[in-house]
Amino acid sequence: DLAKKQELGRHAWYLFHTTLSRYPDEPSEAQQTKLKNYIELFAEFYPCGECSYHFQQLLEKNPIQVKSRQTAAMWEDYDCGC
Amino acid sequence: DLAKKQELGRHAWYLFHTTLSRYPDEPSEAQQTKLKNYIELFAEFYPCGECSYHFQQLLEKNPIQVKSRQTAAMWEDYDCGC
Ligand SMILES: Cc1cc2nc3c(=O)[nH]c(=O)nc-3n(C[C@H](O)[C@H](O)[C@H](O)COP(=O)(O)OP(=O)(O)OC[C@H]3O[C@@H](n4cnc5c(N)ncnc54)[C@H](O)[C@@H]3O)c2cc1C
Ligand SMILES: Cc1cc2nc3c(=O)[nH]c(=O)nc-3n(C[C@H](O)[C@H](O)[C@H](O)COP(=O)(O)OP(=O)(O)OC[C@H]3O[C@@H](n4cnc5c(N)ncnc54)[C@H](O)[C@@H]3O)c2cc1C
Repeated sequence: DLAKKQELGRHAWYLFHTTLSRYPDEPSEAQQTKLKNYIELFAEFYPCGECSYHFQQLLEKNPIQVKSRQTAAMWEDYDCGC
Repeated sequence: DLAKKQELGRHAWYLFHTTLSRYPDEPSEAQQTKLKNYIELFAEFYPCGECSYHFQQLLEKNPIQVKSRQTAAMWEDYDCGC
């Protein structure tokens, strides 16, 4: 259902972008590990099978950068084409 | 900013409810552990400090039930009052 996929996408990107915009400038090691885990679980549980698959593949090719808010933001600007 | 908090809440609940509605009826042990981790990280990274705090407290008092889609749905109906 295309309309549902798009609505889900808009909701999810909103939460996703807002979350990364609040990520610390100088995260601790623990925070870096947690963000990486969080994004991987977000991808795995994303409730659109096709999207979940694409996003997990994207993360494998282009792992999220968790060193700082800025590197996370640069990573995020990568266009997944999805 | 109240309007932003509410907009964030609506986006996040949408993703949250949709995710739990797609959770398996008979999840593996691994899936149960992952869902628990995912919800805990969702709470910790939730980009509204007050909400994140409340939701983490809620999870401590009333841990998410991950045995099946049905128990997760019952857990979800609990009113956090937030
Ligand atoms: C994790 C994830 C995976 C997805 N995978 C797929 C998929 O495999 N197939 C599919 O058809 N749809 C997928 N979507 C949905 C898609 O990205 C759009 O959100 C949806 O189609 C709504 O688009 P729109 O034009 O209405 O919104 P838009 O106004 O285009 O986008 C709304 C917001 O979504 C974000 N966004 C949209 N597209 C991208 C992109 N390519 N890269 C980064 N950010 C973007 C932007 O932050 C934008 O602000 C996925 C969404 C998410 C969150
Ligand atoms: C994890 C999380 C924690 C939050 N913590 C706070 C907080 O501490 N303080 C605060 O002011 N706002 C908090 N919010 C925001 C709040 O829950 C509402 O989403 C927001 O105020 C928008 O409400 P609304 O009346 O416009 O939307 P509504 O139409 O009332 O709700 C939209 C959807 O949000 C869900 N929802 C709303 N309230 C609850 C609730 N109490 N329990 C379960 N689901 C609910 C429902 O699924 C509903 O379908 C939080 C949101 C989330 C996702």
